[in-house]
Amino acid sequence: MGTPAGMRVLNQRAVLDRLRRGGPATRPQIAKDTGLSKPTVGQALLDLEQHRLVRPIGRTTAGPGRSAMVYEVNPAAGHVLGVDIGRQRIRVAVADLAGSVIARVDERNRCRTAGALVRTVRDLAVRTVSDAGLSLAEMVVKVVGTPGVPRDRTLLHAPNLPGWERPGLLDELETLLGPDLVVENDANLAAVGERAYGAARGVDVFVCVTVGTGIGMGIVVDGRLFRGANGAAGEVGYLPYPSDVDGAARGRLESAVAAESVVALARSRGLGSVKSARDVFALARGGDARALDVVRDEAERLAFVVASVAAVIDPELVVLGGGIGSNTDLLGPPLAEALARLTPLAPRIVAGELGDGAVLSGAVAIGLAAARDLVFDRRGEVTL
Amino acid sequence: MGTPAGMRVLNQRAVLDRLRRGGPATRPQIAKDTGLSKPTVGQALLDLEQHRLVRPIGRTTAGPGRSAMVYEVNPAAGHVLGVDIGRQRIRVAVADLAGSVIARVDERNRCRTAGALVRTVRDLAVRTVSDAGLSLAEMVVKVVGTPGVPRDRTLLHAPNLPGWERPGLLDELETLLGPDLVVENDANLAAVGERAYGAARGVDVFVCVTVGTGIGMGIVVDGRLFRGANGAAGEVGYLPYPSDVDGAARGRLESAVAAESVVALARSRGLGSVKSARDVFALARGGDARALDVVRDEAERLAFVVASVAAVIDPELVVLGGGIGSNTDLLGPPLAEALARLTPLAPRIVAGELGDGAVLSGAVAIGLAAARDLVFDRRGEVTL
Repeated sequence: MGTPAGMRVLNQRAVLDRLRRGGPATRPQIAKDTGLSKPTVGQALLDLEQHRLVRPIGRTTAGPGRSAMVYEVNPAAGHVLGVDIGRQRIRVAVADLAGSVIARVDERNRCRTAGALVRTVRDLAVRTVSDAGLSLAEMVVKVVGTPGVPRDRTLLHAPNLPGWERPGLLDELETLLGPDLVVENDANLAAVGERAYGAARGVDVFVCVTVGTGIGMGIVVDGRLFRGANGAAGEVGYLPYPSDVDGAARGRLESAVAAESVVALARSRGLGSVKSARDVFALARGGDARALDVVRDEAERLAFVVASVAAVIDPELVVLGGGIGSNTDLLGPPLAEALARLTPLAPRIVAGELGDGAVLSGAVAIGLAAARDLVFDRRGEVTL
Repeated sequence: MGTPAGMRVLNQRAVLDRLRRGGPATRPQIAKDTGLSKPTVGQALLDLEQHRLVRPIGRTTAGPGRSAMVYEVNPAAGHVLGVDIGRQRIRVAVADLAGSVIARVDERNRCRTAGALVRTVRDLAVRTVSDAGLSLAEMVVKVVGTPGVPRDRTLLHAPNLPGWERPGLLDELETLLGPDLVVENDANLAAVGERAYGAARGVDVFVCVTVGTGIGMGIVVDGRLFRGANGAAGEVGYLPYPSDVDGAARGRLESAVAAESVVALARSRGLGSVKSARDVFALARGGDARALDVVRDEAERLAFVVASVAAVIDPELVVLGGGIGSNTDLLGPPLAEALARLTPLAPRIVAGELGDGAVLSGAVAIGLAAARDLVFDRRGEVTL
């Protein structure tokens, strides 16, 4: 049994959860859905409105009987910042509590040092919150996605960003972005994004494999990220792989499947003019036989990854994303063919639905989940 | 709030749980530990004693004050049957609710058909429960460990037992052993056993790799088995592996690391007299250079497995078991050396502590966990 004050909090929480899950509703509708009495719902709505967590949006007009006030969750009760630090681009978004992105910035990453990159991230973050008419201090939660594995205030296994593994880097980030900062592996965030808004909605056990500048994988089990004992679960760039590629620092598998390798492979096949993996896929899409060969080789290597993952964790679904992985129109058929040869455990494979926005979407999704709890817990601190 | 009857059940459960976790205790000790009043504890003890779930074992004598009756969980309140069906041996145990094994049978598996194997398992189970002075019908839960993945009343991926993959095999097992039957992958049970009683006590994220006639792996996360989407998590015999071994049916990795391959490798190195992997390890232990070479090759292949698993799920610990895997004195050093070359994510590796009893221990552990709930839920059905 709760104290009266405790009960009042629980009732507010129940009413707020009902509005979040079921959308706008009137007092009688909320009473019916929560099992609370109408006066109790009325008191909870009053409390929540005073804390600016819900707001009235008008009266019912249609139907018989008296019209009633309709309430919704106040999207402006809090905001979150999401950041995706990639080797190619830096993306930043500000979303309100309803999940609407109200400001967004997407810039090329030209930084050559960790110091420059941290400062650039801060500048872009300040610009984005300012575009939203807000300040960094008003962000309830900030979620930063980056290559590497956060551990002891440092990022491990992030060889593709120069200087990014230096000790204490996460302290620098927090100094510039402020508190309530969450740093998460980018491949993990892509998986969270695809589960929240994309190709993996409602799937219990799946992985999201991102192949681009590097390769990464996020594992989601029953809706939660599986990080392993040290946060390195899904670091499939380190899969032992029999290749003649020199991959001591990055992992031989990563060196064999990532963008640079696709370009190198294409050049070795006589496609001297290609500058990027994107060029190779464009040529293949145009029917170039040599480019199609390169695509087939890349598909074989990805099949090795998928077959390895299937033998270890048996996912229901593999979502493919990233600058390379997203070319599923070309990669799909040879990948399926190679998988059938490699394993009897081949999972279903689909393209990600969020494209290069997957990491940012995952950052926002994680930020929202945390912020929704925080704004409720802190509601006493800001009253009208 | 519960009804009086509901409260009485909750109080019984609380008292029983206290005795299970904390060992024998008096009424005042139980009252102190559970927060229940002494009369409430007295009533719960009376109820539990009537249902034969607890029993008095004597009076306190030492110390000041009146002596008090000491109660303990009644080990005879229920029994479980555990079975380990291996290609080499079949093992059966009966344990009481306190976890004490009160009868045990261990016989060579000479069966050449699935029908003969199912009947043999039944005969050995009947013999074991009879040795315990009980009957099959008195087993609260029966847990059978076997190679393969149980699915749709059939075992998949069990090529090492002839006929074992035939449709409906699990129905045959249940017909002969009776209801309340749980069938679980043997490598999974070995992991459960090592977590409950062996090398992985208290470890959150670990795998147990069993290498013998075949190779299997159980994954435990936060104390629970992780089975994947279709129960095939840990089927590392299907890891794609670059070898010249023909392993279409069993998986190339399994064909490369399992016992037959160790023997074949030894023979190809001029050790024509070896009949089993055990012989090879015995020779290596005696210092035979060719046998030591074979052991080194086997360690390299196991390193491939461990490195693959590390890149996917990043376990804190790898427990090695099975007829081959348990030779960690010989395999350990070359395995560590190969791992250091293959991956920056090498986990800690230890030998299993339960030897060839790991699967049976896991079967008993799972049986006990289920039976402890069942005997309480069914306590009304058997009263004095």
